[in-house]
Amino acid sequence: MTAFAALHHADAPLLLPNAWDHASAAALAAQGFAAVGTTSLGVAAAAGLPDGAAATRDATLNLALALSSGPFLLSVDAEGGFSDDPDEVAGVSRELVAVGAVGINLEDGRPDGTLTPFELHAAKIAAVKSAVPGLFVNARTDTHWLGGDGDGGAGDLDDTSRRLDAYQQAGADGVFVPGLSEPSRITALLKTLDIPLNILYSPTGPTVPALADLGVRRISLGSLLYRRALGAAVETAALIRAGRSVEGPAPTYGEVQALVRPGSQRPDTLG
Amino acid sequence: MTAFAALHHADAPLLLPNAWDHASAAALAAQGFAAVGTTSLGVAAAAGLPDGAAATRDATLNLALALSSGPFLLSVDAEGGFSDDPDEVAGVSRELVAVGAVGINLEDGRPDGTLTPFELHAAKIAAVKSAVPGLFVNARTDTHWLGGDGDGGAGDLDDTSRRLDAYQQAGADGVFVPGLSEPSRITALLKTLDIPLNILYSPTGPTVPALADLGVRRISLGSLLYRRALGAAVETAALIRAGRSVEGPAPTYGEVQALVRPGSQRPDTLG
Repeated sequence: MTAFAALHHADAPLLLPNAWDHASAAALAAQGFAAVGTTSLGVAAAAGLPDGAAATRDATLNLALALSSGPFLLSVDAEGGFSDDPDEVAGVSRELVAVGAVGINLEDGRPDGTLTPFELHAAKIAAVKSAVPGLFVNARTDTHWLGGDGDGGAGDLDDTSRRLDAYQQAGADGVFVPGLSEPSRITALLKTLDIPLNILYSPTGPTVPALADLGVRRISLGSLLYRRALGAAVETAALIRAGRSVEGPAPTYGEVQALVRPGSQRPDTLG
Repeated sequence: MTAFAALHHADAPLLLPNAWDHASAAALAAQGFAAVGTTSLGVAAAAGLPDGAAATRDATLNLALALSSGPFLLSVDAEGGFSDDPDEVAGVSRELVAVGAVGINLEDGRPDGTLTPFELHAAKIAAVKSAVPGLFVNARTDTHWLGGDGDGGAGDLDDTSRRLDAYQQAGADGVFVPGLSEPSRITALLKTLDIPLNILYSPTGPTVPALADLGVRRISLGSLLYRRALGAAVETAALIRAGRSVEGPAPTYGEVQALVRPGSQRPDTLG
């Protein structure tokens, strides 16, 4: 088992914060997070590209390269693998492993709001595991966001279980169901799984300790940190414009520079 | 006079917030800021590169290109022009104008903590104005951060005035003295200037209305918004890890996507 896989089988669940650039990843690692994910929304919005539309392949690979030397385990949100050809998805995975990534997220949601046929998504997972067996594949199903295959509508647990079974059979190391947050439904789904379940943290859902008690093995923050970063920046600009005080923590210039060049700081006042 | 130059001669000073990526620029423009600057610290830290060390030429030009289609006037922080050759600095300026930038910041501080000789910095300014006369050149002196040329130490106003005189003679459209925030010193410096003075906002210095009353014509936020964004992201991750509530505003997934594709939103819950 890889070090990253082992974090899914430890006493506490893996809390995975999601970064969008070098400094955000380094700042999170400096807070003691042993592993850092990426957020496809953050990568896409930073580059001015749509999310979930296979437009960010290059931006995602470039970010993985920029983060590869960091003191943390890196898991990359690769949307649907940026292709419907399993061989091409395997190629993306090889590139990610080449720059040091230890995990990948692959989602079955598509930008048109439909789900990739589960057989095709399973084929992508199998192709990745065949190409780079050591890469932790977190198979994400968007049944709760986009609706399932059957008559159950969004969040149908039977649809979800059928998909997750197929992904598990294809070799997925873990499964991810964003949008699922109701404790009894998490418990019900866990009974059908042999591999770790990843839940997306929601400010209106269970806390991290509550998700841990349910048996969730990985909790990711998705786009929340990026969205909060944007919100804080805009709020700060508006406060200053209104002649009011700036609120909340901000690292100094020197602390940000030190994220790039640890130990090498210019005066803290620069900026 | 260009539209951007006119913002330096309006009833109220130009409050220029500084962005580091596409979404931050678009979000600030959506708040009603007619002009948006870039922050070299943000651009550098996002890319994992040192700031102020001429390492971010490509990242800066790529960002300018990404922002060029936005509904705002764009002024780019180009450090010292990424070169000590005035012709090369003029070349950077031509590239910025080609992608739609209307302003540039050129600083005389160097990464080793010394100041570029003022004759050389003036020659860069003259080369830029000769190459692209319509580009608003904001000439920055780092005398207050890095120390002056004479015996007066950091913040010597005579040193500062000598440099700003030379930059004004070379054709600068405005001057920028980060680190200067004491009202009586701002007033004293303003008496020596014929072109607009730009002050860097500091949370511990005068408010925007107070700077306006002094006669400051442009107030920029430098790296503050980027640093606050990072601080909010790290704070949010730490709060969640501790099982506590998330504080502060965050745009929804759909709102962030709309910054890229106005009018085209996926469900707000996605991430």
